[in-house]
Amino acid sequence: MIILLGATGYVGSAFSRLLHSRGIPFLAVSRQSCDYSDASTLCSLLREQRASFVINCAGYTGKPNVDACEGQKYDCLQGNALLPGVVKTVCEDLNVAWGHVSSGCIFTGDRSSGRSDNNPAGFTEVNPPNFSFRQNNCSFYSGTKALGEEILGYGEVLCPDGQRVWENKEEATGYLWRLRIPFNEQDSARNFLTKLMTYNRLLDARNSLSHLDEFVRACWECWERRLAFGIYNVTNPGSITTREVVELIRQSPIGKKLGAAGKQFEFFKNESEFMSVAALTPRSNCVLDTHKLSSGGIVMTPVAEAIKNALQTWKER
Amino acid sequence: MIILLGATGYVGSAFSRLLHSRGIPFLAVSRQSCDYSDASTLCSLLREQRASFVINCAGYTGKPNVDACEGQKYDCLQGNALLPGVVKTVCEDLNVAWGHVSSGCIFTGDRSSGRSDNNPAGFTEVNPPNFSFRQNNCSFYSGTKALGEEILGYGEVLCPDGQRVWENKEEATGYLWRLRIPFNEQDSARNFLTKLMTYNRLLDARNSLSHLDEFVRACWECWERRLAFGIYNVTNPGSITTREVVELIRQSPIGKKLGAAGKQFEFFKNESEFMSVAALTPRSNCVLDTHKLSSGGIVMTPVAEAIKNALQTWKER
Repeated sequence: MIILLGATGYVGSAFSRLLHSRGIPFLAVSRQSCDYSDASTLCSLLREQRASFVINCAGYTGKPNVDACEGQKYDCLQGNALLPGVVKTVCEDLNVAWGHVSSGCIFTGDRSSGRSDNNPAGFTEVNPPNFSFRQNNCSFYSGTKALGEEILGYGEVLCPDGQRVWENKEEATGYLWRLRIPFNEQDSARNFLTKLMTYNRLLDARNSLSHLDEFVRACWECWERRLAFGIYNVTNPGSITTREVVELIRQSPIGKKLGAAGKQFEFFKNESEFMSVAALTPRSNCVLDTHKLSSGGIVMTPVAEAIKNALQTWKER
Repeated sequence: MIILLGATGYVGSAFSRLLHSRGIPFLAVSRQSCDYSDASTLCSLLREQRASFVINCAGYTGKPNVDACEGQKYDCLQGNALLPGVVKTVCEDLNVAWGHVSSGCIFTGDRSSGRSDNNPAGFTEVNPPNFSFRQNNCSFYSGTKALGEEILGYGEVLCPDGQRVWENKEEATGYLWRLRIPFNEQDSARNFLTKLMTYNRLLDARNSLSHLDEFVRACWECWERRLAFGIYNVTNPGSITTREVVELIRQSPIGKKLGAAGKQFEFFKNESEFMSVAALTPRSNCVLDTHKLSSGGIVMTPVAEAIKNALQTWKER
């Protein structure tokens, strides 16, 4: 039996839909129904259900946005750093494989060393997080997500050539799937496209993004194809700026409808204006490299095309 | 009723002895007897016992030393960062005051800006930790202890004058008592003086230290005198180098006995030799300022004198 933890969240619901649509038997578990943060409770559940694979979609993201985590540090640390450790430990004790939804928001920028570039190189799975407690430049949320990867066995290692790499210090027993800024065609407060359509002002920045349904399909295929355990950046190939996404929205049917209704898309002058006016804590904006996933035979739609498709088939609430 | 969490540990046992000797009714709780890391379990306990004050001595230090925490990250993060958050939250819900044993090991160095000095200025309670995840220079243990202070409400605040201070972002409801390198006259694997007598080679460094029994007395007096809630550096005034402590040992009865038995006190050339030969993870060596405690009327013995006294009355196992 596949066990899905955090099944009622934004990502968990997408996993639910995927497994359901494929006729794969799974048990959807929400924290209300079972306190899986308790190791012995989780252990009993996995035994009773004869778990074959555990998907951990539970995490603490902050509502309505990441600023909320600054005031909820305990829950944030518990959900994003400790809980993954419980899942891993229990799964290892029972010899059950697992997958954990990690996040690309533990990076900032790209790997093109400051060159202005429309297609900058992204961070790979061996690059140490550069937006983390250890860099002292991050939101509490991002700090706890990076610490979660440490709790799952990863850490910075200094190589003989002086390079620093992010390495599993133990034998890998599960997947870390890194999600970035989810979106799809379904209008939702958690959908990046909805956010762009509803926020008063926007920050222009270049990012990798994850189409939510492609994300869960790709994660599931990691397990179906028995790819090697470890970290995978699970984003749509390439990167895109907020202004480019807004242009795609403007040209789409829903964008034209919003335009007719008088919707303006205004931008902050720069990140420091954004920080002083609209945000409590720094945001991650970053580009991820997706070659590890694609070389495992898992293909996702290039990011601009995935956004266009979502906008063409947009479903209002 | 006073509730003592972590009562069987090195610090907890000292609190136990103190409260017992003073005839103060208290309930000694160990993790074996009650899982106080679970908020509802702790809440029931505090209600049933009609708790008036909670002392949290529980923490994860690593045995035989801090290196062990590098391989036990989950337990270390749980015990040092999450657990304090559970204690604080439950106590606040029940309107019960609390005290938490924090650590001075979230600092490195002193405040004399590199001057060689026999009596350097120490870090005060408003200085942000400089040996923490956020500085990316610390052991996992120190990182979790600093994060524990964040979970208890503290964080770095940038003042208008450009200074960075460590400030409680909420209303204080309890004490954070910072302990540093405990010692007393009782031979024990956890006693700094025992460590110096038994280790093959030593690292010379300047530190503030805490006489264990004076530490618990001072902590208790914070509550007895109803000092303002907040952080207190609870160390013996002043600082001392490892070489100076070794000289005090040599001159003491136990030191002479060890000398007669052929014991040499050898030192590493420097910290980098120590790190390459004997340690997995960096150690905190630091000087703390104790004026906040003393200005509250709580006096501890100057550090060299406290060490001399302990050595004069040394009790072998």
